[in-house]
Amino acid sequence: MSTRRYLEDVQPGDTFESGAITMIESEMIEFALRFDPQPMHTDPVAARDGPFGGLTASGWHTASIVMRLLYEAQPLGDTPMIGMSVDEMRWPQPVRPGDVLRAKVEVLAVRISKTRPSHGILKLRMTTRNQRGETVMVQEPNCWVPRRP
Amino acid sequence: MSTRRYLEDVQPGDTFESGAITMIESEMIEFALRFDPQPMHTDPVAARDGPFGGLTASGWHTASIVMRLLYEAQPLGDTPMIGMSVDEMRWPQPVRPGDVLRAKVEVLAVRISKTRPSHGILKLRMTTRNQRGETVMVQEPNCWVPRRP
Repeated sequence: MSTRRYLEDVQPGDTFESGAITMIESEMIEFALRFDPQPMHTDPVAARDGPFGGLTASGWHTASIVMRLLYEAQPLGDTPMIGMSVDEMRWPQPVRPGDVLRAKVEVLAVRISKTRPSHGILKLRMTTRNQRGETVMVQEPNCWVPRRP
Repeated sequence: MSTRRYLEDVQPGDTFESGAITMIESEMIEFALRFDPQPMHTDPVAARDGPFGGLTASGWHTASIVMRLLYEAQPLGDTPMIGMSVDEMRWPQPVRPGDVLRAKVEVLAVRISKTRPSHGILKLRMTTRNQRGETVMVQEPNCWVPRRP
């Protein structure tokens, strides 16, 4: 079932909870081999002697998983959300095989575009935690979304 | 051949040029189906009526490609670079199938860690352009790197 929501349907302070995604070692390695082939992300044996004492996900894999969590949280239903920019992004803790990630999406600000008033900009904060409640990624994206026609 | 460079080997103002990566439509769709399954990134036909008039890469795919370009530019040789945070990230133009992306890496700042003086923080600016010289992504990551032993 298709649902469309618009800029007017969200308010600063609204929050959305995502489902969960489990990080699979083979997928972490596959992602890293393509995009971030440092041994700490690709080689479980070499990673033991690396900075985290074991294999960790590329931060860009974690960021991509967070995008999937945001997509599933559907703050605007099926309405496309175009990422324009991210004001801040941090990876405070490493992500390891078997970690279960969940994101909380908060609406920080909603404003109408000055140049194209048919659209607006939604500033979000996404906080992603693992199964122990440790924050593994924080980001504050600005998304371009349509206003109600 | 393995080469290791350290915090001391780079200075503010240093620049590095990456090689090139061509964006392949099937890879863009495959990435988006896993991480960002909005029709503008997954369905060439539906994307024609979407916000960019054609298929575009997920911004997280572009970000991951930029990580690969950074890896290949090797500002620190084989020394691991751990991404701690990104101060700012923008996608000023969409990335389309067939686009050829290249990144320029500039060293903005180099500082020694106060809490762990064996390491330091390298602040970079990465500017990624397409074959027409249009900027498709800008980001300013902070990387944790070892000092010379």
